[in-house]
Amino acid sequence: MDLQILDHRLRVTSISKNGLVNYTHPLIKLIFLRNRTRCKFFSLTETPENYTVVLDEEGFKELAPSEHLQVESSIWLPLNVASNGNASSSSQAVGVTKIAKSVIAPLAQQHVSVFMLSTYQTDFILVREKDLSVVISTLNEEFNIFKEVEGEYVPVGCQDFTNGLLKNGKEVVQPTVHPVLIPLNQFCVMSLDPDTLPSIATTLIDVLFYSNSPKEESESSTGQDLECIKFFSFSLIDGYVSLVMDTEAQRQFPADLLFTSSSGELWRMVRIGGQPLGFDECGIVAQISQPLADGDISAYYISTFSFDHALVPE
Amino acid sequence: MDLQILDHRLRVTSISKNGLVNYTHPLIKLIFLRNRTRCKFFSLTETPENYTVVLDEEGFKELAPSEHLQVESSIWLPLNVASNGNASSSSQAVGVTKIAKSVIAPLAQQHVSVFMLSTYQTDFILVREKDLSVVISTLNEEFNIFKEVEGEYVPVGCQDFTNGLLKNGKEVVQPTVHPVLIPLNQFCVMSLDPDTLPSIATTLIDVLFYSNSPKEESESSTGQDLECIKFFSFSLIDGYVSLVMDTEAQRQFPADLLFTSSSGELWRMVRIGGQPLGFDECGIVAQISQPLADGDISAYYISTFSFDHALVPE
Repeated sequence: MDLQILDHRLRVTSISKNGLVNYTHPLIKLIFLRNRTRCKFFSLTETPENYTVVLDEEGFKELAPSEHLQVESSIWLPLNVASNGNASSSSQAVGVTKIAKSVIAPLAQQHVSVFMLSTYQTDFILVREKDLSVVISTLNEEFNIFKEVEGEYVPVGCQDFTNGLLKNGKEVVQPTVHPVLIPLNQFCVMSLDPDTLPSIATTLIDVLFYSNSPKEESESSTGQDLECIKFFSFSLIDGYVSLVMDTEAQRQFPADLLFTSSSGELWRMVRIGGQPLGFDECGIVAQISQPLADGDISAYYISTFSFDHALVPE
Repeated sequence: MDLQILDHRLRVTSISKNGLVNYTHPLIKLIFLRNRTRCKFFSLTETPENYTVVLDEEGFKELAPSEHLQVESSIWLPLNVASNGNASSSSQAVGVTKIAKSVIAPLAQQHVSVFMLSTYQTDFILVREKDLSVVISTLNEEFNIFKEVEGEYVPVGCQDFTNGLLKNGKEVVQPTVHPVLIPLNQFCVMSLDPDTLPSIATTLIDVLFYSNSPKEESESSTGQDLECIKFFSFSLIDGYVSLVMDTEAQRQFPADLLFTSSSGELWRMVRIGGQPLGFDECGIVAQISQPLADGDISAYYISTFSFDHALVPE
């Protein structure tokens, strides 16, 4: 299999709930006005705590520093597994399950923190730029590793990176067991022709930026169930749109524009962490994805600034 | 003819050019998300100096006070002339010309400041609430005056207001002569089915909120001609959309959604004032509209926070 190190240098940031109004201007530009920005990697995920924004340096410079913006200090690089023809995997599962044993588990063993971002199209594994040599050393047995350079994929010679191997030692650390929460909402993972993004602009703007303000002409909405979770994720990466939303949000969009995988499957969320997880603990994705891989169960996985979220079939 | 005092209590405000980013969130809500606001009267006009926002009290409470927001201290009421069947006017002219002699001139004579807001649908004459008794006393000979109360038009008895008549005296003040500027752009006055507003959302957002930031993938645009003026006006009043833009901005919108009057006429602008005009001087609209009425020349008239703008046929 091929592992691609994509040509994006990413920042992982968080905007506070009540600070969002101050970032509406740059965020709308990054989402809808492609001819006004060079940003090619943008992801925005609303959770009950905050808005996690992952974006490349071109996008990051649009976000003015303020008390409402938290920025993780590292540069993160997205990795992507390309299942080329001769892949030996017989798994039919999609999402993070496919890469649990080949990528997630070995990186966890090497104590490399990963930030996962599953989308409709693929699963991005974000690693810190400073961990790249360890990552390459760890994965080069299983993968042909390529680095994207100006749109071309250039093979990465592992000899350049052997000094990184096992940098972190191999002692087995007993992983922390985090509490999980399983909210009642059902989620769908959807996409959209990027050319039709303008058609859903007002709905998407409404859901992303105004869903916490009251509706004036409410149709006696019952409001969010207490046992449901607020979770909405939008990403626009290299021209591809991906949306993760619950069925209640989905009803607000025109049914003919968004598409889901042929199965039209609904997903339930497993939210990991009773306390914010931070960025330094390793092995959390592995803890979750390993048993799913053993059972060949598809799963999406979305890390956010505070918590991790796995989506598994209903 | 009938004169209607509409049931809106308006504020006239100005947002500084570089303060707009702080108001993107409430403005987008007021323009596009009708089910999230009770605002029924909203107008936003960009000029080279600032953004003039005229809106009712429901809309005004969305605008958080800041150094970037200037607010004229009065409450303004919109008047509207309804040309009912038995109108004796033989004029074919549209816009402010129709009301120059019957409304604008008499009010100027009574030293009543007016703030004009022409739209595709009609011409709103805004007067200060505290001037209302003078307005009614002045106009009740020429008009049947009605006050809109919860959607119904209730006749206004002039006896309630006679004490206001001639409050300001009748001495003739020599009007100040203001310099005028005639930019080269050609303007069109357009409308749109409000249900199709979402279809032009991204274009409208781009033009309103981002036209001052550079385009990254510019098609070697020559930029705004120095002798052209930046002027764009959007209003959404009682469900009716009106847009005034120059032909350069018009090209960015899909041609099949916006419509103009049957003549498809283009307009040139006469901008009044070398210095900001303020709100207390009277007779400016009269100075301009009187000769246009004499010549039976159609004209739109849009007041902004700093200057007045007449649009006359090319």
